[in-house]
Amino acid sequence: MNIHAYDSPVRVAVVELVAAVHVATPVFRHREFAEPALEAGVHVLLEKPMATSVEDCEAMIAASESGGATLMVAYRMHQDAYMVELVDRVARGEIGETRSFTSVFTHDINEDNHRGHSGFWGGPVPDFGAYPLNLVRHLFRAEPVRVHALGTRNDDRDFNFRDTVGVTLRFPGDRIAQYTLSYAGHDVDSFTLVGAEGSITSDSCYGYAPEPPRNLTVTTEHGVEERTATSVDQFAGATSSTVSAPAHGPSPTVRRGWRTCGCSRPSRSHCAPARRSPSHRGTSDRGSPAHRSGRSRRAPRTRSRTTRS
Amino acid sequence: MNIHAYDSPVRVAVVELVAAVHVATPVFRHREFAEPALEAGVHVLLEKPMATSVEDCEAMIAASESGGATLMVAYRMHQDAYMVELVDRVARGEIGETRSFTSVFTHDINEDNHRGHSGFWGGPVPDFGAYPLNLVRHLFRAEPVRVHALGTRNDDRDFNFRDTVGVTLRFPGDRIAQYTLSYAGHDVDSFTLVGAEGSITSDSCYGYAPEPPRNLTVTTEHGVEERTATSVDQFAGATSSTVSAPAHGPSPTVRRGWRTCGCSRPSRSHCAPARRSPSHRGTSDRGSPAHRSGRSRRAPRTRSRTTRS
Repeated sequence: MNIHAYDSPVRVAVVELVAAVHVATPVFRHREFAEPALEAGVHVLLEKPMATSVEDCEAMIAASESGGATLMVAYRMHQDAYMVELVDRVARGEIGETRSFTSVFTHDINEDNHRGHSGFWGGPVPDFGAYPLNLVRHLFRAEPVRVHALGTRNDDRDFNFRDTVGVTLRFPGDRIAQYTLSYAGHDVDSFTLVGAEGSITSDSCYGYAPEPPRNLTVTTEHGVEERTATSVDQFAGATSSTVSAPAHGPSPTVRRGWRTCGCSRPSRSHCAPARRSPSHRGTSDRGSPAHRSGRSRRAPRTRSRTTRS
Repeated sequence: MNIHAYDSPVRVAVVELVAAVHVATPVFRHREFAEPALEAGVHVLLEKPMATSVEDCEAMIAASESGGATLMVAYRMHQDAYMVELVDRVARGEIGETRSFTSVFTHDINEDNHRGHSGFWGGPVPDFGAYPLNLVRHLFRAEPVRVHALGTRNDDRDFNFRDTVGVTLRFPGDRIAQYTLSYAGHDVDSFTLVGAEGSITSDSCYGYAPEPPRNLTVTTEHGVEERTATSVDQFAGATSSTVSAPAHGPSPTVRRGWRTCGCSRPSRSHCAPARRSPSHRGTSDRGSPAHRSGRSRRAPRTRSRTTRS
């Protein structure tokens, strides 16, 4: 495969030579690269979140339909065996009714990086926030109904947005999610999901590098189960899926893109769970052997119900 | 030592026979037990939080002064070697400037317990909330300047208050704290402290039972250090300290009680760091040998700065 990089919108002359475009520009510049490519019939793998407005989303979907090209948002976690299994286990009721979700996603971003000086849409809320937001939406199988956020800008950093943000979401079913995002903190990516009958935690959950491996600790009255999963190369898989999808079945979907764009469109169809197409299944199964080999069971921890006063 | 239990305020006749009273009633009934005991010269170890109003706090302090008896609030964590070391390490700058604090403290409380049907002041905010609130106040060495809280009441539980609460605090220095408390969730007590140059996490931090041991994972550019600490019997230590303090030096302090009562008195003296008296030092060192023996150093984890997209 020949790969070329462009820092301005792809012209039709170029478009005719390429099979697909992976748009990884700052979010507010997604449409200007994706729309002409899609209109010219070139498949587009679009970095998340999809766009900065519903208008831009709709324009790109229209371009995809008129050009007959696949538009796929590169949100990788819901195609990952680790996350798919996590969501399935919670849905099967392994920890009972879900009560709360808490996450920390912090990373020390250099101000020189384009994400460091592109304003809100280059900052931690759309960038990091997509991870805990999408994870809890899938774990709770619901959309948030209320949001509160508190942002701060650290004096010793030179970002042109609030670099640290604490978000609180209320979900149907009396459930609460909290997460803190920061471009000015040391690397942490972790979550804690509390259910009525158990909990699931991870202190390495969102990354894609091989180290540290992603992990899950599932604690119920039956004991503590610890699992690790090596990350998989989802970029190659997603790219392959985008390019090959039209030949192998239903497109891996604008609808899926909507599902993960992070915008708050209130329609019911927007929130409908995405169906897995055959081409998606091929992608999401890539990590399974390594993932499953990480299974282990330990003796139950002793956890008294009176460990606090 | 002879120990007696009372479920109504101690009368003077009884007071003359006892050296100290440990008041562990629901919070809104603290003053009615503590005040007459203190006025009669009986030392009082008062469960946290101190009271439900500043008025009650001041009345008990006045009773302590007029009766010449020690009033000590039984908030145990700041007398614990695990927490004292944690606070000291953060203050020494081991993880750089502090950025955010996140905590989860959930526990499945039976509605039959007095804490399950005594309204707000028997619920998770004053009860569990004292732990993350006091921890972050000591870690940040500051008082919060803004608060947001979201509470929910789960349909399948029968509490007469919001049983699950998400709190967000803003602290001076552009720092954010978030914590979720619940009486309706599986047992979790954990925190994550993010600094500019490192992070500290624990998935067992507030308990006092021997198992699971409390733990800390300190991650910096120098690597990952994991420590465990067996909990100590702080009830015996606190009781002994309360009773013996007048004979061994400065009282272990109403001021310390104020410092941890959780009320938001805006005076500067209220927020001044408590000094450790000799009697306190004796208590807080009890856990040191077991604590220190847990020290270990592992090889640094590889943590790339590009582990996310």
